[in-house]
Amino acid sequence: MHEILGSIKGPESLREMSDMQQKLLARELRQVIVDTVSKTGGHLASNLGVVELTIALHTVYSSPRDRIVWDVGHQSYVHKLLTGRYKDFSTLRQFGGISGFPRIDESPHDVFGTGHSSTSISAALGIAAARDLKGEKFSVVAVIGDGAMTGGMAFEALNHAGHLQKDITVVLNENEMSIAQNVGSLSKHLSRIRTHPRYFRVKEDIEGLIKRIPAVGNSMAKVAEKAKDSIKYFLVPSMLFEELGFTYLGPIDGHDLVLLKDVLKRAKKLKGPVLIHVVTKKGKGYRPALNNPDRFHGVGCFEVKTGEIIREGNGQSYSSAFGKAMLELAAEDPRVVAITAAMADGTGLSEFANVFPDRFYDVAIAEQHAVTYAAGLAREGFKPVFAVYSTFLQRAYDQVIHDVCLQNLPVVFAVDRAGIVGNDGPTHHGVFDLSFLSHIPNMQVLAPCCCSEMKEMLRYALNSEGPVAIRYPRGEGRTVKGYTPGPLVKGKSEVVIKGKDLCIIAVGNMLPRACRAAEQLQKKGIKAGVVNARFVKPVDTEMLAEILKDYDKIAVLEDNVIRGGYGSYLLEQMNSMGLDAMDYRIKLLGFPDEFVTFGDNDSLYRAYGLDDTGIYYSLLDLAEGGKGSGVSKEKVGYASGGQGVVSKQRKS
Amino acid sequence: MHEILGSIKGPESLREMSDMQQKLLARELRQVIVDTVSKTGGHLASNLGVVELTIALHTVYSSPRDRIVWDVGHQSYVHKLLTGRYKDFSTLRQFGGISGFPRIDESPHDVFGTGHSSTSISAALGIAAARDLKGEKFSVVAVIGDGAMTGGMAFEALNHAGHLQKDITVVLNENEMSIAQNVGSLSKHLSRIRTHPRYFRVKEDIEGLIKRIPAVGNSMAKVAEKAKDSIKYFLVPSMLFEELGFTYLGPIDGHDLVLLKDVLKRAKKLKGPVLIHVVTKKGKGYRPALNNPDRFHGVGCFEVKTGEIIREGNGQSYSSAFGKAMLELAAEDPRVVAITAAMADGTGLSEFANVFPDRFYDVAIAEQHAVTYAAGLAREGFKPVFAVYSTFLQRAYDQVIHDVCLQNLPVVFAVDRAGIVGNDGPTHHGVFDLSFLSHIPNMQVLAPCCCSEMKEMLRYALNSEGPVAIRYPRGEGRTVKGYTPGPLVKGKSEVVIKGKDLCIIAVGNMLPRACRAAEQLQKKGIKAGVVNARFVKPVDTEMLAEILKDYDKIAVLEDNVIRGGYGSYLLEQMNSMGLDAMDYRIKLLGFPDEFVTFGDNDSLYRAYGLDDTGIYYSLLDLAEGGKGSGVSKEKVGYASGGQGVVSKQRKS
Repeated sequence: MHEILGSIKGPESLREMSDMQQKLLARELRQVIVDTVSKTGGHLASNLGVVELTIALHTVYSSPRDRIVWDVGHQSYVHKLLTGRYKDFSTLRQFGGISGFPRIDESPHDVFGTGHSSTSISAALGIAAARDLKGEKFSVVAVIGDGAMTGGMAFEALNHAGHLQKDITVVLNENEMSIAQNVGSLSKHLSRIRTHPRYFRVKEDIEGLIKRIPAVGNSMAKVAEKAKDSIKYFLVPSMLFEELGFTYLGPIDGHDLVLLKDVLKRAKKLKGPVLIHVVTKKGKGYRPALNNPDRFHGVGCFEVKTGEIIREGNGQSYSSAFGKAMLELAAEDPRVVAITAAMADGTGLSEFANVFPDRFYDVAIAEQHAVTYAAGLAREGFKPVFAVYSTFLQRAYDQVIHDVCLQNLPVVFAVDRAGIVGNDGPTHHGVFDLSFLSHIPNMQVLAPCCCSEMKEMLRYALNSEGPVAIRYPRGEGRTVKGYTPGPLVKGKSEVVIKGKDLCIIAVGNMLPRACRAAEQLQKKGIKAGVVNARFVKPVDTEMLAEILKDYDKIAVLEDNVIRGGYGSYLLEQMNSMGLDAMDYRIKLLGFPDEFVTFGDNDSLYRAYGLDDTGIYYSLLDLAEGGKGSGVSKEKVGYASGGQGVVSKQRKS
Repeated sequence: MHEILGSIKGPESLREMSDMQQKLLARELRQVIVDTVSKTGGHLASNLGVVELTIALHTVYSSPRDRIVWDVGHQSYVHKLLTGRYKDFSTLRQFGGISGFPRIDESPHDVFGTGHSSTSISAALGIAAARDLKGEKFSVVAVIGDGAMTGGMAFEALNHAGHLQKDITVVLNENEMSIAQNVGSLSKHLSRIRTHPRYFRVKEDIEGLIKRIPAVGNSMAKVAEKAKDSIKYFLVPSMLFEELGFTYLGPIDGHDLVLLKDVLKRAKKLKGPVLIHVVTKKGKGYRPALNNPDRFHGVGCFEVKTGEIIREGNGQSYSSAFGKAMLELAAEDPRVVAITAAMADGTGLSEFANVFPDRFYDVAIAEQHAVTYAAGLAREGFKPVFAVYSTFLQRAYDQVIHDVCLQNLPVVFAVDRAGIVGNDGPTHHGVFDLSFLSHIPNMQVLAPCCCSEMKEMLRYALNSEGPVAIRYPRGEGRTVKGYTPGPLVKGKSEVVIKGKDLCIIAVGNMLPRACRAAEQLQKKGIKAGVVNARFVKPVDTEMLAEILKDYDKIAVLEDNVIRGGYGSYLLEQMNSMGLDAMDYRIKLLGFPDEFVTFGDNDSLYRAYGLDDTGIYYSLLDLAEGGKGSGVSKEKVGYASGGQGVVSKQRKS
């Protein structure tokens, strides 16, 4: 079907191709990507944008000898297709298949695993330093988008690279839109450059011309002298990167294959750090994505012909429920303001941004700044809500401690994508937040079991005196049949089902699973009670004392690593209450101490015994006298057997 | 004694003073600071450097109506002396006294608490945004050093500030040396500016002049036109900040009071974000500090006359032992490289930097980059050791997860200043690391009980296949009488004293305390066993099983918050081993769920019942039948009673 792509042995094949063949190859690559992603879901627009760039990189550089590091990595599909993963490409992002991000255990061409933004220059610089220490000769290239460039660590790396003067090339791919529309002065700087339609070749020509202008008069002579030094700023206004010690080349049309190869070849020969500014169009070559790159950034399944997105499920997602709740609560209280780090759409805040433009701040991909900025707003009496994916909040762990919690400032963290997130995999799962948030003094941590409870929690958080985190998962907020959460009281859990034989305490979205398990157990004559934890911190010690009076078998169910999570917190509390000495059996069900791979959530839950069946058997075991944590070695073993990629990852 | 300073009512008094009086005040301020810090220890050089700048700021701006945010805050002593804290200044950094950093609960003039670097622009911008939403009128100023400016979040904030165009002033205090000598291209940029001895007034004059130059010929006309646009880059090469959307003023002599006030007044009138580049000398006015600002950055007690530093203790510090061990291990293995984030001296790496300059990297204040840079080096077969204070590693929590542990790369984290650090207080205590490191898959976490064990752990870490963190405290590594740690085996603890009645498992530097307590208990006829935990992760489950066979009372002693720490890990393990059902009494001794204040370590340990007496009574209680965690509400209450600042902090 894809004649050229099918015949490629590796990136070395590219070097034998004519420009025309490469152009045809580009077309095939786009076809494969659109067809595959329409079925698997994934990052579409970003990959369509870098087809020519990736071909040019793999033509000019010899991977894996030369190291190409993809920032974020959601634009690495073309790279994967060109480096031996065409045949298996239909398994993209599927359990046991090919990852949607570079992974060092997947291919020697995947030099450095990515997923979070802004890491590539640091990694590339470390690799370049290692190369020089070893006395080896190879090129190191980091490919980074303009969105990722706003992340502070990219700047830290630029600063260090400018200092070390190692030979590395940074390809800055400006696509005029990262995930959301770019904000910030860096973005303005780039667009100013783009309005100068001159290339570096022009710059050289004019530099020669200027050198021939005679100096006229004394003051003019000085100006002319300065002009020679600063001439590059006239013609290509790249002073920002040049000041940081980089040789700047650009801006280059990122869809002009011949020009790209030419510029990359020149960059390869230059000494010291080089920055190539490439301008591309997200979604290039597929009209629906080109017209709507935001919608086709990370996308589910869609109709190739029409670009119509096939919606999964019918219920309301937590993100959209959050967005609606924010609109309502902000209308009630003018102190409510919203902050996002380039994720307005993903976190459900787009409508808020339209309705309350003055009370909405997109700070770019800059989670650290976002948190401390929120602290500043809170200090002046506002009620900032920072909506952020769990995995990205990891970036601001220190700011949460140092700027918010230490000062006990009332910042609300709307922690979206908590728990496992499915196909994006280990770089994106939000399975650490209960652990890293609940050991911070002054922080309250809540988890809703459905969308309406989330709204109540948001209202509660906005009326709190100190910091509050509300963590909720990706996807639909499923309600529990026959259970309407009651009014929220600080530090109080709520009984959902009264039982006798064992009690399941469930955190957030694990509640429906707990209820289903209780229903199943009922058929076996086992009466299981179910509690909606609501507050992970402060923990409901009264509830705990009650439960410990009524039951001798308890299971905790949470979508987080067991280590440091809610269950571990309960054990600590029981211990400090002096209750561990009695005859209880406590079973903690959550993720074990390993990174959870990618795949659909059902497969992942199943692999860890956290699907309905797994939970049922764990609880049955508990009811019938078993002990210990639900995640035994055997269980993980049985579930993941035969999954090549999974085993590889698990080995470590 | 200090005539002018003693008569000042508040910063408003400054506005009634003549320039001459302010100069005399500056002299008094320097005297007070030198005298006080010589007795209390603290940050000397940085404060001596900002005397004129602080006077000028408090003359031009009306604090607390106008908001002044001090980055890091170790230069806030002058500010404190001018805002009502002169009389109590002798209690600087002492338990219950005045903090060495701004604290919002200490004074309305302390607008935002700081301690970690690079947060001030974010906080100031949040405050400015709040001001505009409220429709109020006041100025917001962030004072940040050139060292702190290298931290990524400062750049994130600059990028956002340039975008929002709020009225804020950033005073960039270039002191040609942050904590260690500055590195990075930003620093080079600033020094390039400094070599241009022109002020912005000159710039304006020449802009006028250039406008009168007639265009000659076609190509020259274009140059002249461009020249008009870019004239500021000719005269004051501030393009970096101007490109980021700031109006740049500078460089200004930061010891010229009159000039400073003049420039601040101009800045106050300007719209949008303004950056004032001020050049100061650290240690100004006190020769020993001026000559040796690095040594007088954070300093203990010293002789005012000679500047001779009075050394506390005679033993070897962990940091210097680490430095020596690194020298030896690097000599053995050429793959060992060292990384610091502007803390070569503090972490003990100065000698390493001299001996192995090619294998030493100071990345500036950039912990995030440091970790991912290390990951890049590890990916190429090197053995990078990132030496970092526990509290600063919080900044790189995400990079530890995402770039190091997820890829299981063998990066070694030498986590210095773990546990409480004394007088620097809550922003600097390293009491979360066991919690935030040990829930990360693939990570090993070790804690040595003395310097020689630390060296063995370092050797072990350098031979490990994956990431290893070794955490050790500030100060001396005290050995335990009669105990020489045996060979290190992965995941194995070691018995120090065999006992019968109860067993104390101690983490790292808590071991000597555990042994002393055992000795005391012996006098009461209680035979306490003591175990050196060594590995916090992986936990020694065999040891645990043994202990649970031999003892029914166990105490865990750690210099970390209890939540998510080693003790909690043991409870989890016991639970998963099915052992919680039996009749054990486990007592977890560590810090409770609150921020630990500042003061000498002895006072702090005492306040939390972790001094020798407190531990002894806790253990006695355990031996005699008590249950639960050692940190009961009552105990904290008794210890902190009457300490104003402490209670305030605890309230939250």
